[in-house]
Amino acid sequence: MSTATLQCTSCGKDFDVLAAPLLCGVCKKGLLQVRHNLGRVRERVNRYDIARGPKSLWRYVELLPVERESITTLGEGMTPSIKSENLGKEWGLSNLSFKLEYGNPTGSFKDRGTSVSVSVLRASGAKEVFDDSSGNAGSSLAAYCARAGIACTIYAPSNASEQKLAQTRVYGAKVVKVKGPRAAASRAALRAWRAGKGSYASHLRSPFFIEGTKTLAFEVAEEHRWDVPDHMVFPVGGGSLLLGAFKGFTELSELNWTKGIPKLHCIQAQTCSPIVDAYQRGRSDVVPTHESTTIAAGIMITDPPRGRQVLEALKSSGGSAVAVSDGEILEAQRLLARCEGLFAEPTSCAALAGLKKLIEKGEISGDESVVLPLTGSGLKQVGTLRERHRRL
Amino acid sequence: MSTATLQCTSCGKDFDVLAAPLLCGVCKKGLLQVRHNLGRVRERVNRYDIARGPKSLWRYVELLPVERESITTLGEGMTPSIKSENLGKEWGLSNLSFKLEYGNPTGSFKDRGTSVSVSVLRASGAKEVFDDSSGNAGSSLAAYCARAGIACTIYAPSNASEQKLAQTRVYGAKVVKVKGPRAAASRAALRAWRAGKGSYASHLRSPFFIEGTKTLAFEVAEEHRWDVPDHMVFPVGGGSLLLGAFKGFTELSELNWTKGIPKLHCIQAQTCSPIVDAYQRGRSDVVPTHESTTIAAGIMITDPPRGRQVLEALKSSGGSAVAVSDGEILEAQRLLARCEGLFAEPTSCAALAGLKKLIEKGEISGDESVVLPLTGSGLKQVGTLRERHRRL
Repeated sequence: MSTATLQCTSCGKDFDVLAAPLLCGVCKKGLLQVRHNLGRVRERVNRYDIARGPKSLWRYVELLPVERESITTLGEGMTPSIKSENLGKEWGLSNLSFKLEYGNPTGSFKDRGTSVSVSVLRASGAKEVFDDSSGNAGSSLAAYCARAGIACTIYAPSNASEQKLAQTRVYGAKVVKVKGPRAAASRAALRAWRAGKGSYASHLRSPFFIEGTKTLAFEVAEEHRWDVPDHMVFPVGGGSLLLGAFKGFTELSELNWTKGIPKLHCIQAQTCSPIVDAYQRGRSDVVPTHESTTIAAGIMITDPPRGRQVLEALKSSGGSAVAVSDGEILEAQRLLARCEGLFAEPTSCAALAGLKKLIEKGEISGDESVVLPLTGSGLKQVGTLRERHRRL
Repeated sequence: MSTATLQCTSCGKDFDVLAAPLLCGVCKKGLLQVRHNLGRVRERVNRYDIARGPKSLWRYVELLPVERESITTLGEGMTPSIKSENLGKEWGLSNLSFKLEYGNPTGSFKDRGTSVSVSVLRASGAKEVFDDSSGNAGSSLAAYCARAGIACTIYAPSNASEQKLAQTRVYGAKVVKVKGPRAAASRAALRAWRAGKGSYASHLRSPFFIEGTKTLAFEVAEEHRWDVPDHMVFPVGGGSLLLGAFKGFTELSELNWTKGIPKLHCIQAQTCSPIVDAYQRGRSDVVPTHESTTIAAGIMITDPPRGRQVLEALKSSGGSAVAVSDGEILEAQRLLARCEGLFAEPTSCAALAGLKKLIEKGEISGDESVVLPLTGSGLKQVGTLRERHRRL
């Protein structure tokens, strides 16, 4: 039996996990989060039992809001972690490693979140789900829904990559293109939700999505023999991976399985940086920005629903936030492929471009350990690669 | 210290691993294979030590011809293995599972072979390497060479997928397009080799490549708690994965770590099926076919250098061989994505289409266990997906 309950982050009211609500049913606006009874978890399992579990993120099932019999898995998690061979040295870092999140089943970290949220939705009896996405979250949801036998619809902005939409469709999902900016697709999904057209598996709002992404922290800690690195650097749009990591490290620390939390750093694209802007101005809330364009389409979120939580995680962990240009992102992509043999999509490479800036600014020093997740596969956008690199 | 030596499969002469020759230096035509001193391996390690090793194929380093300090790794191997949720039931199989080889670092099983062959080449002091490839082997070699700091050239047929060549180029490799059929690219590479233009890292001929692919067998056995499944079904062009699996299972059996070898089945495209043709006619040697076209470009090998060895492996393991049409391959791709949530490229899906035929022919019965490796990512060819599915 899972020890999990749901709690409203705004009014504090509790809900049952299997009701799988998206927002608080009482105050009608608060996002929810999963709370585990860590005392009971500790009675059942210790950190050394973990290694005997499956070779996927489900080895941490005792810390997830899912019963074993409801698990919907495509083998997500337990992605490779490899040391930098060349770039770290060049940039003066003695201990840089990459977590190859693009090795997940559909080619992005999103599979961590989707596996958990689809498992909960399936257990709750969902027959139809939908989400808004410019690409990776949509194709991930489509894949897990195919496996679970759940109908899936994705609301996508009209400028979404055709390659990513083709991947979404191959799993049998319906793609609805929404005219206007990325945010218009979000509004269309919210309308569908209010109209009761199934379950809104919002990767930007669902508490279950973050339960999945938190397993990144568990794996990083387990790989460090239950220690934690000094820094982690994330590309941030909605912030679901950074927030998942923050929740994961916080739970490990509360379990006394690890000590402390890495400094979590947030990297955004210069043309869409609401969280970086708020961080630099010392604000505790995010002001939505106008939509522009960036090569890093995966982090083009002008009004992140969890922006406030990201700012809190940066502050609480001692991390920071910087923005990078498209030129810096493409240069990072080139360096990563040529110096390390790793091919990640531009959105992921924003984090690498940001790492360079953090070193230059003195936020990270040469003897500190850094883990950088490579969130999405370069294959996701290989079609337009030469053109992009030529243009810049 | 590795226990490995090289032996000519034709005249039996022994060679040193670090000389890293491609063909026998005495008879000038024999392909080489690695021989391990399994008695010495057994003294050093037992199968239960393996689980304490790294989360990559290098956990089996004692059975590989590489010293620890020469390892060039991108985290290859230890790919997810997942049970069929729907297709197996539909086809009357109670125990079908997929090995997600496309979760490897560059999106295909080739990374297993490349990691080992580049590790050996690096140890041997190679500065420039080349291969001929229509796609996956080329991008894999490019990635590992980038990591190892070795210059890389890929000879590609002029009709090779632009998406795959773009991936090869991103790692900094040079792509030389060769006019004519796939075999013309092979001849260009052989000419470069005879002219002494560096090391020919031929995935079709190198003994080290198969050392890497054999780790698939080790993982499947370890996942089955050191038992073996009844059947494995492979898409076959050059046959490097099937031959690797055969060598791996043979070594495990000789070590007494497992008993028996699964029946290994070979699936080819109807328009390029030299091995299936030889099998069906009861021949022990392969007659080259003329080049045609197939959607499964990765197995378009008209004259497989190891064709004879593949036939021997089929015979020795009790497996069989069938050919499938492009229409059957695309239907298998669609079913795999829609029923299982798994997206593999057409070449991989040839194996699934073949599995269906093997069941229909009675070669595989409902209560037997089957493992099917999904060799390459669907993302590798997503660009032309809709067009292909529409055309057929």
